[in-house]
Order: sequence, then structure tokens, then C-alpha cells
Amino acid sequence: MAILERSDTGAVAHLHMNAPERLNALSDEMLAALQKEFDRLKDDRSIRAVILSGAGKAFCAGHDLKQMTAGRQAEDGGKAYFKDLFDRCARMMMTVQQLPQPVIAQVHGIATAAGCQLVATCDLAIAAEGTRFGVNGVNIGLFCSTPMVALSRNIPRKQAFEMLTTGQFIDAARAAELGLINRAVQPESLADETAAMAETLAGKLGAAVKIGKQAFYQQMQMPLDQAYAYTGDVMVENMLYRDTEEGIAAFIEKRDPDWSQ
Amino acid sequence: MAILERSDTGAVAHLHMNAPERLNALSDEMLAALQKEFDRLKDDRSIRAVILSGAGKAFCAGHDLKQMTAGRQAEDGGKAYFKDLFDRCARMMMTVQQLPQPVIAQVHGIATAAGCQLVATCDLAIAAEGTRFGVNGVNIGLFCSTPMVALSRNIPRKQAFEMLTTGQFIDAARAAELGLINRAVQPESLADETAAMAETLAGKLGAAVKIGKQAFYQQMQMPLDQAYAYTGDVMVENMLYRDTEEGIAAFIEKRDPDWSQ
Amino acid sequence: MAILERSDTGAVAHLHMNAPERLNALSDEMLAALQKEFDRLKDDRSIRAVILSGAGKAFCAGHDLKQMTAGRQAEDGGKAYFKDLFDRCARMMMTVQQLPQPVIAQVHGIATAAGCQLVATCDLAIAAEGTRFGVNGVNIGLFCSTPMVALSRNIPRKQAFEMLTTGQFIDAARAAELGLINRAVQPESLADETAAMAETLAGKLGAAVKIGKQAFYQQMQMPLDQAYAYTGDVMVENMLYRDTEEGIAAFIEKRDPDWSQ
Repeated sequence: MAILERSDTGAVAHLHMNAPERLNALSDEMLAALQKEFDRLKDDRSIRAVILSGAGKAFCAGHDLKQMTAGRQAEDGGKAYFKDLFDRCARMMMTVQQLPQPVIAQVHGIATAAGCQLVATCDLAIAAEGTRFGVNGVNIGLFCSTPMVALSRNIPRKQAFEMLTTGQFIDAARAAELGLINRAVQPESLADETAAMAETLAGKLGAAVKIGKQAFYQQMQMPLDQAYAYTGDVMVENMLYRDTEEGIAAFIEKRDPDWSQ
Repeated sequence: MAILERSDTGAVAHLHMNAPERLNALSDEMLAALQKEFDRLKDDRSIRAVILSGAGKAFCAGHDLKQMTAGRQAEDGGKAYFKDLFDRCARMMMTVQQLPQPVIAQVHGIATAAGCQLVATCDLAIAAEGTRFGVNGVNIGLFCSTPMVALSRNIPRKQAFEMLTTGQFIDAARAAELGLINRAVQPESLADETAAMAETLAGKLGAAVKIGKQAFYQQMQMPLDQAYAYTGDVMVENMLYRDTEEGIAAFIEKRDPDWSQ
Repeated sequence: MAILERSDTGAVAHLHMNAPERLNALSDEMLAALQKEFDRLKDDRSIRAVILSGAGKAFCAGHDLKQMTAGRQAEDGGKAYFKDLFDRCARMMMTVQQLPQPVIAQVHGIATAAGCQLVATCDLAIAAEGTRFGVNGVNIGLFCSTPMVALSRNIPRKQAFEMLTTGQFIDAARAAELGLINRAVQPESLADETAAMAETLAGKLGAAVKIGKQAFYQQMQMPLDQAYAYTGDVMVENMLYRDTEEGIAAFIEKRDPDWSQ
């Protein structure tokens, strides 16, 4: 049984974290498996949407604390290992945002620490009602400093600070209110709702979504005038795609676009 | 009939987009008319608030796709025209933020693509219940890359991403919840509510609103210490206005300020 | 009677602004007293959480307008005094964020102008239902330019702009919705709820909260890759604390950590 299972349905790739006995912790093995699959997806034009889910009771419970503790046996007390671990984790997270395809987190059970960061990092997230979200490392003396990078770019400041310093959990309804997820749904319809969103995304023109997703994160870090100069160029490029010409022509002629060519 | 009508009531200028047969699309003509009026308003000290609305079924449906398609006939396939078009559009949007007066979008019907961008760009927005908002270019293969510059500076990240990649619409109540508009009101009171807000704004000291509005957008792009250094200077300048001296004196003496001199 | 009273309960310091006759205005004296206490707290490892509250009818009504008006008597019309005043005020605000301990605003009555800025600046805020929040300087011709630095980093853009330009107040429920405060509570339980939150914070490992709070505000101003590089280093440092090793070991062994050594 692979630690990360992949199953494709049409243009949708579904990655399923499969280490339920460790609550899908981001162990060295899990990080490597995720990085590998995301790297494969990067160049796969046949896939236009990605779903990420977890097996067992939890979506993901963050870093693997037992493995990290074992890392302390090194001569430097684990310093080099920890640095490398957080680098690899950040690289995986940034790869999610750099993927040409939108990534939807399909979340259930619990999403804590780096697991909560993974939800915040995915472009979109749907969670089962009853899911609990936390950046609770502070409870064991390890402030969730890397998870907060993603969290604080999703939800308002005071609410992020409260989660980080009190270590308290929020439920799915609150997570939707704050912007951490797109919506909370009945647990029994979680898979269907996520699949439906993925199908919607997969029905769009992949090249347009790719250029748009990339621009989304880039422009957000720019001052307004630069953001407009940059996205103006993106729009020009997008306008010149043959499929976009066809999409606009179809719209004007009130017919469906033919993007099959 | 002008493509953009202007009617002033006291210190409030009301701009009314008037191309209902094209859903007030941001054609070359509409962009030019808006740019011209905003440029005129820039130096008009008698105007202290601006309302922007649209005639017919929609507030604004974005770029004029027929005109853009015609632009493809050029030798370069439209590249130079598109670049110029997005430049002019961005310049118009930035002019809204650079105006000394607050601009209120009075929104009804639909606001899509660059029309949704226009709502996001205005300093304030009131919409009729039932109004639908979307950045739905992705549906025809043209990702709303320039609209997202404004949208992603108004609403949370995951919700912006969802609108951009699914192309789905949100209603006015949801737009208010997310921060895209200030409030949703009954359609029959839309004009009155917008006028009342404009009146409130027009009752303030224009010089203070001008310096404050400019500082609002500037400081938001600065790190905290720079933002404080800059706005501290703005406060000093504001304190030295004779009308501000009068305003503060009136407050201390529990009377209305006399800003007529 | 001191203008700022301090009372400690265990690891919680409680600062109480005590100039009720001036609605706890941020006069020269109040600013100096706050700066002094925050500077003392900066190096006090025995304190792990801070509460800030106000005596009388209001939490804080902003700058002291009478004192500012008196400042106009100087030869330069007050220019140098105002500049120095806003510098001191900004320094005090930034000191709150630079403190190693989380600071909770315990808010009641009214919080206006620089008083609203103080709420926005504190890391966390709990308010009594019925509290009114405003950045209403515009009503007297003095745009709340420095308060907006903090406000616009807490709540969505259009809602901040509305408060700043209309001068209208929002209530505690709305403030919670927008993200300006963490929650609104019954007035009679305000003190208890704030104390309970402070106790929760004080129960965490001070060194982890310190390094995390500092990183929280730093990383938010960085592009994503820098934010991850920086917080990755913070996580490594945090992992190497002996108390964090104990915290993680205790978690794995399902016992409470012993941080008393």
C-alpha cells in the first residue's frame, strides 16, 4: 500500500494520503511522496484539477513528532535535520501554489499544525461539518511558525493570532466564515461536492487557468501599478490563445466553445 | 445621448454609464468617457463625492468582446490593441483610487469581469439585492487576470480564487459578507441609500478626505514603520489646515464647525 | 492615583488606563505611561500575557484634543509638537507588537480614533456588547490617517474606508464580524472572559510565544518564499529549546509537560 495513492478520473487527479495510523502526518516519506506527485503533475497537461484527501480519522495532523524526536539523536541535536525538514515542507507547500492546476483540499476529521497549513495552502478547500482546525503547536511549546505563513494569508489577523497563541480549535463552519475553507458540507456529501467542484474546474480551458493561477499569487505580492502592468501582459497573452479566440467567438455566437482541436 | 451622463447635485457628482444595449461594457468609448470625467473631477474642488451607476439591466458586463474580436483583424492579431486596451483600463481604474473624492459604486443587475473589477476598485459600493457578481471570463477561456488585481484586494483569498476559477456568480448578500461591497439594499431604495451615503461624505471637509483617501491606499502597500512615518506626516499636515483648527475648536466648544470661510 | 495602573496576577500583567474624566485620551502623559510600562514588560520574563483596559465610560477616545489645541500656541503653530506627538504615539503602538507577550485589549464603552487604533494594534481584543468603535476624526476635519494604519491591517478594505470617510460607528457584534476584535461578550463577563484568555496564554511556553509573536508580524510583510525561509529558521530555533523537547516528549508519552525547570 503506497503512502500516497493517486487515482485519476478524466482530467481530475485525486491524491489520497494513506498513513491513517499516523493521522497522515507529514513524515519524510509523506513529504517526498507529495513532492513527487506534484512534480509529476506540473507537466501533465491532461490533468486540469487536483483533489487532495486523507485516509482514516484525520485529513492531516501536521509534522511527524516521533520522527522529529528521533532526529534529535544526531550530533547537532537535530538542527540540520530540522532545517532540511522545514525546507522540504515549505518547498512542497510552494509547489502546490506553483502547480498549473487548481488543488482542492477535501478535508475531514482534523487538520492541525502543518495539516492546517496544507489546507490553507491549497487553492480551494471543502470540509466536512465536524472537522476541527488548529495550529496548536503552542500547546507543546512549538509555535506553528511555518503554518502561520499560509494561515495568515487566508484569514484575518486577530483570528489567526488567537488560533496560534491559544492553540484552540475552530470548527468547519467557523473556518468557512473566516475564509480558511470555501465551504462546509455534510460529511456524507464531502466526496461528491469536492468531485463536483473539480469537474467544474476541469471543464475550463487549462491554459487559461494555468496562466491565471500563476498570476493570482504573483500579483498579490506586488504594488498596484506593477500588478496591473503584469496582469495586463497576462491578459494579452491569454487573448492570443487560439482556444480563447474560439471561446469568445462561441460566446458571441451563443454556442458552446469547441476546445477539442 | 452621451455614453456617460453626468449630473451634479450640490457637491455630489453622479456619473451614469449609458450604453444599456451593451450592458455598459467598457468599450474604447466608455473607457475614454470615464477617464475624461475622472480627470475633470480630479481638480474640481466643488465636488466632494462621486456616484457611479449604469443604465439598463446591468451595472457593467466587463470588456466589449465584439470590439475586442474586431481588434484581431490587425496584422499582429490584435496584440498591440489588446495591450493598449488593458493599459487604458488599468489607468482608468487607478484614476478612481487617485481621485481626491470618494467614489461609490451604485450597483444593480450584474457586475461581471471588468465590471466586477470596477465595483472592487471604487472606494465604496452599495448594491441592490439580487445583483450578481462574477469574474467569469474563465468560462470563455479568458481568465480575469486584471479584474483579480482589484478583487483579491477586497475579499479573502480562497473565495477570490473560487470565483475566478469556477466562473460562478455570487449574490449581493454574499458580496457584502465577503467585503466586495459595503451593503446590499432593497432595489427600490438603492438610489436613495447611495445618495444618502454620498451626502454624508460630501458633508465632510474635502481637504481632509482628500489627504486621507490618498494616504489610505499608499500606506497599505508599506511596511508598518514606513506606514506610520508617512501617515504621521499626513496627520501633521492635516492638523495645520485652518478648517481643521476650526473643526477641533468647534468640537471642544460643542458647536458645529464653520467651514464656509 | 496613577494615570496608568498596573496589577499583576501570576504571569498576567493588567494595565488599566485611569483618566476617566478625559475618556482615557492618549495625552502626552498617557502615552508616556504606556510606553514606560511596555518597555518594562519587554524584558520581564515572569509576565506571559498582558491585558489593557480603561477606567470609566470609555476604553479610549483617542488623542487629547485640548492638549493638541494648546500645542498650537507654539511659534510654528504646533507643527513640531504634532510631529513629535504622532511619532511617540506610533512608537507606543509598534512597541505593543514588539512585546514578547501577547496583549489583549479589554474594551468597553467607546474606542474612537487613536483609541480604535489601540484596539486594532493589540494582538487580541475582547469587547463588551454595546461598545462602539469609530475612526471618526473626519467629522471634525482630521482624517484618522495614523489609526487607519492599524485598522486597515485588521478589517477588509471597503469596510475600513467606510468607517474612515463616513465617521460612523460600528458596534461590537459588527467589529467581531469584520475581524477588529476576537469576540463580543456580555458586559458583566468582560473582565472574566479577558482574564480567562490571558490565563490560557500565560499557560503556554513563554519562549515559544515570544519567538512566534515576533515572527507573526515579520513574516506577514514578506513575500512567500522569504516568509518560509525566515519562519523555517524560527522553527529550528524553537525545536532546539529544552522546554520544547520536553513538551514534545510529554505529548508523545501522553503526559503533561514539565516546564518548571
